[in-house]
Amino acid sequence: MLTVIGVPGLPLVKKGDDLGSLIAQAAARSHTRIQDGDILVVSETVVSRCEGSVVRLDDVVPSASALKYAAITGKDPRVVEVVLRQSRRVVLARRGYMVCETLRGFVCANAGVDASNNELGYVSTLPSDPDRSARSIARAVKALCGVEVAVIVSDSEGRPFRKGAIGVAVGVSGISPIRSFIGTPDLFARKLETTQVCTADMVCSAAGLVMGEAAEALPVVIVRGVQFGKDGSIGDVLYEEDAFKEEFEGRRAP
Amino acid sequence: MLTVIGVPGLPLVKKGDDLGSLIAQAAARSHTRIQDGDILVVSETVVSRCEGSVVRLDDVVPSASALKYAAITGKDPRVVEVVLRQSRRVVLARRGYMVCETLRGFVCANAGVDASNNELGYVSTLPSDPDRSARSIARAVKALCGVEVAVIVSDSEGRPFRKGAIGVAVGVSGISPIRSFIGTPDLFARKLETTQVCTADMVCSAAGLVMGEAAEALPVVIVRGVQFGKDGSIGDVLYEEDAFKEEFEGRRAP
Repeated sequence: MLTVIGVPGLPLVKKGDDLGSLIAQAAARSHTRIQDGDILVVSETVVSRCEGSVVRLDDVVPSASALKYAAITGKDPRVVEVVLRQSRRVVLARRGYMVCETLRGFVCANAGVDASNNELGYVSTLPSDPDRSARSIARAVKALCGVEVAVIVSDSEGRPFRKGAIGVAVGVSGISPIRSFIGTPDLFARKLETTQVCTADMVCSAAGLVMGEAAEALPVVIVRGVQFGKDGSIGDVLYEEDAFKEEFEGRRAP
Repeated sequence: MLTVIGVPGLPLVKKGDDLGSLIAQAAARSHTRIQDGDILVVSETVVSRCEGSVVRLDDVVPSASALKYAAITGKDPRVVEVVLRQSRRVVLARRGYMVCETLRGFVCANAGVDASNNELGYVSTLPSDPDRSARSIARAVKALCGVEVAVIVSDSEGRPFRKGAIGVAVGVSGISPIRSFIGTPDLFARKLETTQVCTADMVCSAAGLVMGEAAEALPVVIVRGVQFGKDGSIGDVLYEEDAFKEEFEGRRAP
């Protein structure tokens, strides 16, 4: 059996906060016991806020490229400038949206730059090293609660061909994001040839059902009862090149 | 709190079996109580087997198109022929794999045609009307257990840009696959403009963590504690046209 348990009572976090300690305190106050082997899923929004990955739009001067993409997409040129600074290349730009490959290799809408859940006039970016963010939360939880947990920093992202966002991992600590079933026998004792699953994204989707969106969202959730390996980094989920990436003519961010 | 509970003891199903009744019986035998408001997630593999959506490769004569794509991909031309018969168009064909848009509009590897968990020399295809399959399971469970459940027929699928399959829905009954947060206030009381989540796929990913893959897989899982709307069909998840689809020059299946 798998259970997903929200951790209520996390305060509105601010730059410089020790997120791991705040999580441990919120769990203690709400009598939510964190156990060995749990996976703590933490929304990237709160991680970015704690780490100060927030940009004031009035401080941003759009480049020529940003103006060009702003014209195509209809977006604020300053937001587009922040998006381009986070990007290796623009995968797709259409009215209303941009899909970019981020500096770390994620392909996602607006390179993960988000106005929601930020003060007016500010946007947040993805954490600069989300695996490190996850490790630091795991360390604080170990120090304060005495338990060994895996941590996943999660985001809610759309994807090609299907409507609606799902939960995906952007950083991991203490969990292998990919699980391989290659070589495992199927129902008819034939070995599976290609099956790999993205445990980390599946966990983030399970967590997302409890996290919700919007103001009443719970940014920290415990997922308990998952079988997982312990080694790996978020890079294990990303392709250096895949056929879909190759199909899109990219451009380098300025 | 959300819980995901496997239903053990489903027999190896065969063509013509009443899957809903077999699920109700397996739940009863294993003392797994199905409750009002539960979501039953059922792997498409067992649905296809019950419905006879299985093709004997020795009966398949590959067309010229199938031979062409077999040469590109290195796949068995008879398997490619089955894939093309299930497809509106080929989105991408490379050595080792094909991505197709199915007749119902799913974009997925091999149009959902699968050799795993089938007898040697056979492949299974996606159920021909997976929403109807889901409804029929819900009806049988209602008749036998007296409870009103949502049913999702799930598959395990890869996606562009990220490694590893995740759970996705291919058919639904009694659940809105998409949940919209548009207009809901965020942390700073600003209304969210675009956030829609694919509840159905998130539920299938949560279920997939308990289902597993390979021989010891549990094809039926209960997901309990999810907030969901009751109306909708799997078509709600599919784009008529989206930018990614437009980027790919397609071809019609013969």
